[in-house]
Amino acid sequence: MDEIAADPTHPRYQSLLMRHRLEEAEKKGMLAGSALIAHGRGEAYDYLLGEQTIPSAMLATEQALAHLLAAQHPVISLNGNAVALAGKELLHLADRIGCPVEINIFYRTPERMSALIEHLTELKDAHSYDVEILGAQPDARIPGLEGPRANCVKRGILDSDVLLVPLEDGDRCEALMAMGKTVLVIDLNPLSRTAQMASVTMVDELSRVVENMNKLLAADELPKLSHQYNNELSLQDSLNHIKDFLTGNN
Amino acid sequence: MDEIAADPTHPRYQSLLMRHRLEEAEKKGMLAGSALIAHGRGEAYDYLLGEQTIPSAMLATEQALAHLLAAQHPVISLNGNAVALAGKELLHLADRIGCPVEINIFYRTPERMSALIEHLTELKDAHSYDVEILGAQPDARIPGLEGPRANCVKRGILDSDVLLVPLEDGDRCEALMAMGKTVLVIDLNPLSRTAQMASVTMVDELSRVVENMNKLLAADELPKLSHQYNNELSLQDSLNHIKDFLTGNN
Repeated sequence: MDEIAADPTHPRYQSLLMRHRLEEAEKKGMLAGSALIAHGRGEAYDYLLGEQTIPSAMLATEQALAHLLAAQHPVISLNGNAVALAGKELLHLADRIGCPVEINIFYRTPERMSALIEHLTELKDAHSYDVEILGAQPDARIPGLEGPRANCVKRGILDSDVLLVPLEDGDRCEALMAMGKTVLVIDLNPLSRTAQMASVTMVDELSRVVENMNKLLAADELPKLSHQYNNELSLQDSLNHIKDFLTGNN
Repeated sequence: MDEIAADPTHPRYQSLLMRHRLEEAEKKGMLAGSALIAHGRGEAYDYLLGEQTIPSAMLATEQALAHLLAAQHPVISLNGNAVALAGKELLHLADRIGCPVEINIFYRTPERMSALIEHLTELKDAHSYDVEILGAQPDARIPGLEGPRANCVKRGILDSDVLLVPLEDGDRCEALMAMGKTVLVIDLNPLSRTAQMASVTMVDELSRVVENMNKLLAADELPKLSHQYNNELSLQDSLNHIKDFLTGNN
């Protein structure tokens, strides 16, 4: 990684940087056993998208940011991969929006929760972000889910009206939608249950989405909610993009 | 995994079994850091194929088996993921074909080589396979490659005329083709350099391919080389299959 890290013009820089961040996170005990396999699946879909933010994904990102800015009680939910891939950038986003983040992981163990909270707290302190980090003491449950993965925080996920959940699993996305929330997801597979069910689906790589949101905020280009936004059409556009990619290479 | 292992009718049985085998292999030190990410990429492409052996992949498998059976000096090259996912089945195949296997890994360390050889030797002894396991003492180099990944065995890969290389990387596939060998690859991404360059590309999941070959051999259905086989058309067929999958779901 070292020689790559020194050269952001390397064509594989971004992809190798993400792998490097995952390796570091794994050493710190932040990741579940399935985290690297999940990342590999994402890499494959990103390859089929041309490893870029396609126009429909940018429109979805603007719509998602508009929802976060218009919300009464926005929350950003974080899992291990999200913290590993873009922990600092997600805290920066939460700081700008003025919302808490909540660590909410599928395979919850005390060790993983501690590792994630410690890592985020270090980032928060190093960059003086004014962001509350929730999740250590869950005091509520998401209805319709079983076991530890139903756990959440009342004044976090439970009471949120708009929720950004990068890399969410299908069951939890469904349960959150059933609670009547506006659920904003980042998912590179436009056919996944999560992608199909969410209020707004950004078919794009997590770190690019967060960077795009932070750039819009830094430039004071605050997007407004569009009543013409149609998530189904947006998903169809990303599928068409992949089909064109498969055709163009032959 | 335990409850899944007991129930082969579970819809995710095969996929979860492969993950379980990778976890076990990782505990034994058989895998490189990138192995799980690579497996995840494969899972994504397999999902787009409908997690099945499509007809063009079966034709490619028959052609590949015909090449192995007609070869003067066939060899099966194995890397960490191949050993983890289908070590026993690949030894069974080598036993039936009467060819050696050679462990040839991209990130070669003495520890990984020992772990792989030990695991394969255990399987060989447990099932009384008559298969030579090469790779521990490389005495030749693949021309055109640099560093430890050029290492190979003279009476193995170097002198082979037909080589089955599951999950090969693009550079090494190119170097092996440049040596004039018939290179048979298993690769779930029909657009990869490996898939595009090989003599015969099986766009299918490794364990299914090996199972299909072993079934043909067990039934004494020995395929003959087809002069009509066209690898480019076979790849195009798999791309069309993925495009149909993307369309059918919407």
